[in-house]
Amino acid sequence: MKILTRTEIEQLLSIPKILEAIEEGFIAYSKHEVVIPPVGSLHFDSPPGDCHIKYGYAKNGKYYVVKVASGFYDNPKQGLASNNGLMLLFDKQTGAPISALLDEGYLTVLRTAAAGYVAANCLAPKNISCVGIVGTGAQAHYQLKFLSFATKCRNVIIWGRDIEKAKQLAQHADFSGWTFEIAQNIEQLTAKCNLIVTTTPSSHPLLFADQIKPGTHITAVGADDSGKQEIDAQVFAKADKVIVDSRSQCSLFGDVSYALKKNVIQPEKLVELGEVLSNPSLGRTSETEITICDLTGVAIQDLQIAKTIYEASVSKVK
Amino acid sequence: MKILTRTEIEQLLSIPKILEAIEEGFIAYSKHEVVIPPVGSLHFDSPPGDCHIKYGYAKNGKYYVVKVASGFYDNPKQGLASNNGLMLLFDKQTGAPISALLDEGYLTVLRTAAAGYVAANCLAPKNISCVGIVGTGAQAHYQLKFLSFATKCRNVIIWGRDIEKAKQLAQHADFSGWTFEIAQNIEQLTAKCNLIVTTTPSSHPLLFADQIKPGTHITAVGADDSGKQEIDAQVFAKADKVIVDSRSQCSLFGDVSYALKKNVIQPEKLVELGEVLSNPSLGRTSETEITICDLTGVAIQDLQIAKTIYEASVSKVK
Repeated sequence: MKILTRTEIEQLLSIPKILEAIEEGFIAYSKHEVVIPPVGSLHFDSPPGDCHIKYGYAKNGKYYVVKVASGFYDNPKQGLASNNGLMLLFDKQTGAPISALLDEGYLTVLRTAAAGYVAANCLAPKNISCVGIVGTGAQAHYQLKFLSFATKCRNVIIWGRDIEKAKQLAQHADFSGWTFEIAQNIEQLTAKCNLIVTTTPSSHPLLFADQIKPGTHITAVGADDSGKQEIDAQVFAKADKVIVDSRSQCSLFGDVSYALKKNVIQPEKLVELGEVLSNPSLGRTSETEITICDLTGVAIQDLQIAKTIYEASVSKVK
Repeated sequence: MKILTRTEIEQLLSIPKILEAIEEGFIAYSKHEVVIPPVGSLHFDSPPGDCHIKYGYAKNGKYYVVKVASGFYDNPKQGLASNNGLMLLFDKQTGAPISALLDEGYLTVLRTAAAGYVAANCLAPKNISCVGIVGTGAQAHYQLKFLSFATKCRNVIIWGRDIEKAKQLAQHADFSGWTFEIAQNIEQLTAKCNLIVTTTPSSHPLLFADQIKPGTHITAVGADDSGKQEIDAQVFAKADKVIVDSRSQCSLFGDVSYALKKNVIQPEKLVELGEVLSNPSLGRTSETEITICDLTGVAIQDLQIAKTIYEASVSKVK
């Protein structure tokens, strides 16, 4: 069994390969070429935290994946990252463990950011005036970094609860030469940005329908469990196209689930990201449409990124 | 993160400590002091296999566990064990991975055998004339080995499809000085044994009501997933006491689930093993009763054994 540490994983990864693998994964998912059971989860009260177990396989693939990811939101008080976790890759022919990717949650951050790239690449308007990032954590950082593969726009507005963290993000070496503005409130961001990504673990809506201009694309990645919500249900009613990573999963939790439960939109309005990739006419068809993509995180992403890293480690040895 | 290999785990383990930890785990489980979500599972067609993900925590404990166990039943054709897997222990305060126990499925075998010990210890008649083992694999081996802590009886009858494997088991050094008989059919076993353990991945019943004498205890450990069954539903009707490791889990799958679905017994007949440990009057109350214990495998066992091994590894370092 190959043990890969976070440092080894960082040395092995190729962003273009990850983006390609995630795109392929969404297409396979929506073609029902994968087996992905519902997410397992554990919740903790004291201190507050959660753990998600995502697992599955591609029917014609060599591996199955089990990913364990945690979020303990008091960790930063102790100087620890909120998120942690690891991915396990198994041989689909024998059940033998092949690799443990001890990524400390890093690959979950990357595969989520890669999904944000995929969503922006196929759904955002052609001309991005300004990118809006809601949140200031690792996910905000990597969404921005990966979005640079989808748009040439380097103007960013950040909104977050912690101004210091927003400043740190804006000053990071990954974004040297970019233009950053730190918004005092969310309206400053929504007024200027036509590509918005929300990346917080918020339990109440941060974006509301009256704030969203025509021609905006929103990708929401924070609400990956019941009880989390970033986008008010009415935003989905206002949107011309509502895209989800997984129809079944987004009906259970995530931002879309609130809109469905309140009957603000009907299930027929949902289109999967993999369906848009296979048939772009299901996505944005004009520069003035409002599109929104709700990403709850699907095990096919974990499988694809774990496979990409593991196979890179094997070919490196050869 | 502490990586423990199978060899290291073998050196660390203490059977008495494991038996004690498993007993404590069942008591805590039945007192609702643990959080154990439903088992996650993956099924594979070609080659046939399954993977179970069991996870959970004790509310007042330090850890949470995620255990991944596989069964690929064509593996022996390639000279590989059918079962494989590993256990992961996480810090319940931060979500940080603490230890990966790369046990190759060995700890799952042991914690199941330990549950067999617990069941026999509190449910079997006082005087065991002969132990009957159905099946000849690793689980048969460890059930016998662990039963030696519950009874002084060293007379065993084995029944299995593969006579050669039955002979190998009987000749194993762990059982030197024991008396073994290899049954030609199941009736030879049921006629003489009053403590019977079934350990096969059978998909159809092997034991039937007319074979079971008064004063017999049966522990069934093989049916750990839907589609598996070792004990005919009518055996549960004939039994005076029906014990389960988990009422909720045994209602979903395992031998008892068939008896419930056929209305052969009512849910009220089920008593949890942890309840019997806390209140022995819920178990066997005479030497002539028929008792049966259906063990589907609960994550609390995985948590308890992983914790025992990990803490042994830490105290060894000190």
